[in-house]
Amino acid sequence: MGIGQREDLQHAFERVRRRSLDIAAPLSAEDCCAQSMPDASPIKWHLAHTTWFFETFILEAHEAGFAPFHPAFRVLFNSYYNGIGAKHPRAQRGLLTRPSLDDVLAWRANVDGRIAGLLAGGADPAIVPLLELGLQHEQQHQELMLTDVKHLLAHNPIYPAYTPQPMEASTAPDALAWIEFDGGLAEIGYGGNGFCFDNELPRHCTYVAPFALASRLVTNGEYLAFIEAGGYRDPALWLAEGWDRVCAGEMLHPLYWIQDGDGWREFTLHGVQPLDPGRPVTHVSLYEADAYARWCGQRLPTEAEWEFAARQAALAGGGLHPSPAVGDGMLQLFGACWQWTSSSYAPYPGYAPAPGAIGEYNGKFMINQYVLRGSSCATPDGHARASYRNFFPAGARWQFTGIRLAR
Amino acid sequence: MGIGQREDLQHAFERVRRRSLDIAAPLSAEDCCAQSMPDASPIKWHLAHTTWFFETFILEAHEAGFAPFHPAFRVLFNSYYNGIGAKHPRAQRGLLTRPSLDDVLAWRANVDGRIAGLLAGGADPAIVPLLELGLQHEQQHQELMLTDVKHLLAHNPIYPAYTPQPMEASTAPDALAWIEFDGGLAEIGYGGNGFCFDNELPRHCTYVAPFALASRLVTNGEYLAFIEAGGYRDPALWLAEGWDRVCAGEMLHPLYWIQDGDGWREFTLHGVQPLDPGRPVTHVSLYEADAYARWCGQRLPTEAEWEFAARQAALAGGGLHPSPAVGDGMLQLFGACWQWTSSSYAPYPGYAPAPGAIGEYNGKFMINQYVLRGSSCATPDGHARASYRNFFPAGARWQFTGIRLAR
Amino acid sequence: MGIGQREDLQHAFERVRRRSLDIAAPLSAEDCCAQSMPDASPIKWHLAHTTWFFETFILEAHEAGFAPFHPAFRVLFNSYYNGIGAKHPRAQRGLLTRPSLDDVLAWRANVDGRIAGLLAGGADPAIVPLLELGLQHEQQHQELMLTDVKHLLAHNPIYPAYTPQPMEASTAPDALAWIEFDGGLAEIGYGGNGFCFDNELPRHCTYVAPFALASRLVTNGEYLAFIEAGGYRDPALWLAEGWDRVCAGEMLHPLYWIQDGDGWREFTLHGVQPLDPGRPVTHVSLYEADAYARWCGQRLPTEAEWEFAARQAALAGGGLHPSPAVGDGMLQLFGACWQWTSSSYAPYPGYAPAPGAIGEYNGKFMINQYVLRGSSCATPDGHARASYRNFFPAGARWQFTGIRLAR
Amino acid sequence: MGIGQREDLQHAFERVRRRSLDIAAPLSAEDCCAQSMPDASPIKWHLAHTTWFFETFILEAHEAGFAPFHPAFRVLFNSYYNGIGAKHPRAQRGLLTRPSLDDVLAWRANVDGRIAGLLAGGADPAIVPLLELGLQHEQQHQELMLTDVKHLLAHNPIYPAYTPQPMEASTAPDALAWIEFDGGLAEIGYGGNGFCFDNELPRHCTYVAPFALASRLVTNGEYLAFIEAGGYRDPALWLAEGWDRVCAGEMLHPLYWIQDGDGWREFTLHGVQPLDPGRPVTHVSLYEADAYARWCGQRLPTEAEWEFAARQAALAGGGLHPSPAVGDGMLQLFGACWQWTSSSYAPYPGYAPAPGAIGEYNGKFMINQYVLRGSSCATPDGHARASYRNFFPAGARWQFTGIRLAR
Repeated sequence: MGIGQREDLQHAFERVRRRSLDIAAPLSAEDCCAQSMPDASPIKWHLAHTTWFFETFILEAHEAGFAPFHPAFRVLFNSYYNGIGAKHPRAQRGLLTRPSLDDVLAWRANVDGRIAGLLAGGADPAIVPLLELGLQHEQQHQELMLTDVKHLLAHNPIYPAYTPQPMEASTAPDALAWIEFDGGLAEIGYGGNGFCFDNELPRHCTYVAPFALASRLVTNGEYLAFIEAGGYRDPALWLAEGWDRVCAGEMLHPLYWIQDGDGWREFTLHGVQPLDPGRPVTHVSLYEADAYARWCGQRLPTEAEWEFAARQAALAGGGLHPSPAVGDGMLQLFGACWQWTSSSYAPYPGYAPAPGAIGEYNGKFMINQYVLRGSSCATPDGHARASYRNFFPAGARWQFTGIRLAR
Repeated sequence: MGIGQREDLQHAFERVRRRSLDIAAPLSAEDCCAQSMPDASPIKWHLAHTTWFFETFILEAHEAGFAPFHPAFRVLFNSYYNGIGAKHPRAQRGLLTRPSLDDVLAWRANVDGRIAGLLAGGADPAIVPLLELGLQHEQQHQELMLTDVKHLLAHNPIYPAYTPQPMEASTAPDALAWIEFDGGLAEIGYGGNGFCFDNELPRHCTYVAPFALASRLVTNGEYLAFIEAGGYRDPALWLAEGWDRVCAGEMLHPLYWIQDGDGWREFTLHGVQPLDPGRPVTHVSLYEADAYARWCGQRLPTEAEWEFAARQAALAGGGLHPSPAVGDGMLQLFGACWQWTSSSYAPYPGYAPAPGAIGEYNGKFMINQYVLRGSSCATPDGHARASYRNFFPAGARWQFTGIRLAR
Repeated sequence: MGIGQREDLQHAFERVRRRSLDIAAPLSAEDCCAQSMPDASPIKWHLAHTTWFFETFILEAHEAGFAPFHPAFRVLFNSYYNGIGAKHPRAQRGLLTRPSLDDVLAWRANVDGRIAGLLAGGADPAIVPLLELGLQHEQQHQELMLTDVKHLLAHNPIYPAYTPQPMEASTAPDALAWIEFDGGLAEIGYGGNGFCFDNELPRHCTYVAPFALASRLVTNGEYLAFIEAGGYRDPALWLAEGWDRVCAGEMLHPLYWIQDGDGWREFTLHGVQPLDPGRPVTHVSLYEADAYARWCGQRLPTEAEWEFAARQAALAGGGLHPSPAVGDGMLQLFGACWQWTSSSYAPYPGYAPAPGAIGEYNGKFMINQYVLRGSSCATPDGHARASYRNFFPAGARWQFTGIRLAR
Repeated sequence: MGIGQREDLQHAFERVRRRSLDIAAPLSAEDCCAQSMPDASPIKWHLAHTTWFFETFILEAHEAGFAPFHPAFRVLFNSYYNGIGAKHPRAQRGLLTRPSLDDVLAWRANVDGRIAGLLAGGADPAIVPLLELGLQHEQQHQELMLTDVKHLLAHNPIYPAYTPQPMEASTAPDALAWIEFDGGLAEIGYGGNGFCFDNELPRHCTYVAPFALASRLVTNGEYLAFIEAGGYRDPALWLAEGWDRVCAGEMLHPLYWIQDGDGWREFTLHGVQPLDPGRPVTHVSLYEADAYARWCGQRLPTEAEWEFAARQAALAGGGLHPSPAVGDGMLQLFGACWQWTSSSYAPYPGYAPAPGAIGEYNGKFMINQYVLRGSSCATPDGHARASYRNFFPAGARWQFTGIRLAR
């Protein structure tokens, strides 16, 4: 059930587009312009690129008498579509002080109006799946807006908060329980009749041996025990690449932890907070997740195991920092932290990307990346599902990534 | 059936150790000392490191009154075993002009004699699997000796041959045929009672959908057609990482191809030769293999498919350059080129490395590498098997890597 | 004659401080925040750092009950003074979206008020030279504000103008004339009783052989002839380091020239303009200046020759792009382009920096930099003098650097 | 007085050429092949390149029926002469395992014979200055052979000695005395009628203010006091570039010093030795020399001061490690360590390189390098003179570089 089938398409369009503006609202034009690393984009760029998507993939093909809002924007805000043409260099997105934030907002309003006109005018039904894709695409960027701006603010020694607010200390979560699954031949991949990304298809058969998953995510308190036991000093716990990063001093604790005398604090979107032992550990790499699991004598799940287990689970979550686990059964599948799996991001058997530039959306990245399952506190409502495949390089830490153990 | 069960262990030891010397025989001490890139080691280093393996893992634990041949060698020739202690920096192996080649050969003779003494003296049976592992390890390095020295010689503008000799032009191979497999639930992994590496275990159940494999490897002639059709100029054919390398000028044809006016030549261990259209294309990256397959409308096999298909196949091959396909049925599974699969190198379900430093042999590399199956012309006789898992990063090209298509 | 002796000190202070704001006025907060390379700083950072200078070197020592405006600013806006303490990493100045531009302007106003209070209150005379130094320092940053923002805007494919305005084509300048000097023993270095930087001292004796200087700077038209004659293709014209950069594709024409079909345009602070053959060539490295001079059979002047010749010259110039030479005699010594000399930036005999952190101002940079003499169109009025020593690495091109020939 | 005027030219040729072989004699072919950094070349490469010089600049122009010994050598052993054509990449000289050392020695013998033939046959007098230059060039490489192989051997954790031998502890040298000079107008540059390099010309007038030079070089003991006083921890002592290197951990003591518990040892061409407090400190960068001088309240000399003082001095020295100062007057001008000056390497007024490729010998390097004066223990006999200008980048430490103070 995609966005467009749950509610009237124009309303969905307005709702999703407005949420991007809501995310940018607490930020200044300066905040929206800067780029803290090549992998993270400025907020303004996100606002522009998501607009570019609608102008390039829908208006250009379907609007009578199409003319671009600004001809240079086609190159400036093309992320990675070689089929569309030239691209502004990714590492230089932060240098685009022009167009201004106001100009980009004007472009958004212009494109929104033209899309509305298309819909009101009885548009070609072929635009419906593209519009749905554009909105799902924008929701993906909404999560990135929050994680990218968090990365930027964390590079400022005065640690500005995105939205300042004290965070309540959680009560200690229940002990981690193991939930057993029988395994067997299973159907994996999206099987509904709503929206899914092409990388969730085709639904196919796979064999899963019996396994167990942890009932909840690993907490800060549990991860701190790993650190205090010397987890970052024992090469036997680490993949070779991970150990190299530890030795190079690039990875000595979760990304936003701050050592403070004998204790620890954590930078969050609400500012620096005392480290809360009951909340899930987040902003860890696959290397760290894997080392922690090995230290416990456990392992990470495969994506098939995760999906197998998640079929019946309910969706929950939200906020700007992961919440502690509360309740019974399989908790925190969604809405807390993305969960690293041991599965490399690869095409499903029979996978075929769409023809044309839009086919570059997912397929060309299926190399040297690992699948994360679930969703995070930063994932927009309604965007997650059990078959969803998020993916990042093993060393990525700026997303809300966490650890669910398997055995 | 491991080395040690096919023949008397001492004879196996002598035979395998002698072959390393045979590989070094055509080379000067200068040739044996140089290192052309961090990933490739000097021949002398290979001769020393394989000796280090026996001294460190067998003599140190099992020889009465053990004393090292030279105390510094424990560090100098430790490849990557953190459990053993310090390591000489990998990129500086070529600076070790001392010990001299003669000194290393003397060390080899010394260790060989002490191992023989241990075996003659009724050694602890615990050394048998270690000895077997040491010999299999040395066979792996024998293949690397040939590919590493090929890489070195290729960096010399006068293109010295390892063993100069003209190569016969092959006759055109038969058209590529497709061999169909029904798929289904299958057992994958080593199931015999001889030697295998830990990464081939445990044997486990997997589901394979119906598929077909090409009867032989892609030839130089077929790959040349891809080049001439603009394969290296069309981003739609490439994984994003591969296209970045193409654009950076790092990958414009198979590694050792040399453009010569309108034609092509190929650097081989027998020197520069005319490009033979009938032989398999080799020294390609996974990026190139994948792009070629996409250009054909096909794909690469998974490692499970490959192993499923290879169960009945006979072993053949050898020489210093891959030979053309001759005959019927599934050809060139072994002895021509390692075959890229689309499978990331990951632990089998239930995989557990050995305890201690020896457990670093395979497990810690199970990240950001891809599995190659089969064997190559440079693989020692008796070293290959259907469950064998070779692995390299997607961009590696200096091994004898080739392409078998699947669909 | 320093700033403070030409007019009342408080008026001088107000005038110089206001000019920084005037320079920033045409720019948005976004423009003021971004950083295009480690060597170039954001406008906001310049506005803050110049304020930091007054707060740190004057208020901290001389204000009763001193408290910093914001304690973090002492680190954030310390450029390179190890004697003051920690510094924010230079390459990350563009990530400081907070403090906002408005916050920095408030800080400026606060410090300006406190300085005024100090002056009104009959300050310790010891602050006068520090205040003078702070104003000269701010003037140096005013020039950098223009060149740094030009570099930033030039990295935007839509080439925004700092102040859009068409530039008039110049009439052809007179032929270059040679002005002869007898040489002999000469006094070099500042000898007046106004302000100078410590690197202009002590005035000392040097011997200058007879020489001649060109009457004006090399023009775009003359430099274009060098390009068209293959100047960038002939290694015999280049210093080895310069040729390496040419071969690496980093330096193929003056920095802001844009090849446009068969012709050329130039990015200026007034936007992209047709290349004007009569204006001086600017934004060239020392390598290019040296190669051009060699191509002409001439050379660059030493700094002693330049100063020897400039003693009697009048100051003129200004604007946002260098103007053509008009008139007789020695033209364009000041106010057009800084002029590369062949002199390495070194201490004068007997040079001694001031004690304490302020002594880091100049002395520690006297290595691997070359002296430029004169001033440019971007130099504030009254800031230039014949003994002034500007200095940059040989490859720097983002300043208004030009070429005066010698022989 | 050049080599060729002091003795019969053929004898000089034989003597100089033989000394290169003598330097290589203690080394194996492996030792002669390896390259420890791009700036240091393999011994075999030096033996080949010096031969290349004679074949390319003399035989090619003056031998009837000239044919190269091996056509590829023209490229392989061209160091940096763009006028000659293509060059093998400098950083890959260590990969040239072929030609073998024996092949290079055969080439040397061949070229030596052909030069002898040319001389015996009454050669064109035009070859005399080229032959002289070739021998001086070979002498320069003889010093580099020793410093380059020292750098290589120092990268081997077993620290092989070039020629093993215990070094005698020196007696404490006399206290450093200051020798005063009146200064005045002076003639600088070579003024004799023997050989000199083009960079020593033209002899010209310069003004030198009164100054004093230290009577001997700074000793290990004195430099150790600087270290123990925290010299490497105080930024106020350092040029900014030097401090950056200190902070990066690249420069914490002289290059070949080895901290050994509470004490120090030093790697020398005679192997690792106890640090001898009486010998001159060597293998320091200009940054370190400058910081040491600042710590003493002194400075480094200019090259003009050094040459002014050295006019009357006698030449002495030799060996494979600098000897302590013994005697009265100005000591260790020659034969111990090259002495960093504060002078940038620049052309003398009126300098003109030779036409053609040979003109690339010196002139194109006159940028971002600093002049060293004197000579070292590794400089061949008869090669040094008061006007000699050696030059290296400020960070170079692998030459026998030392410190003479000035004030």
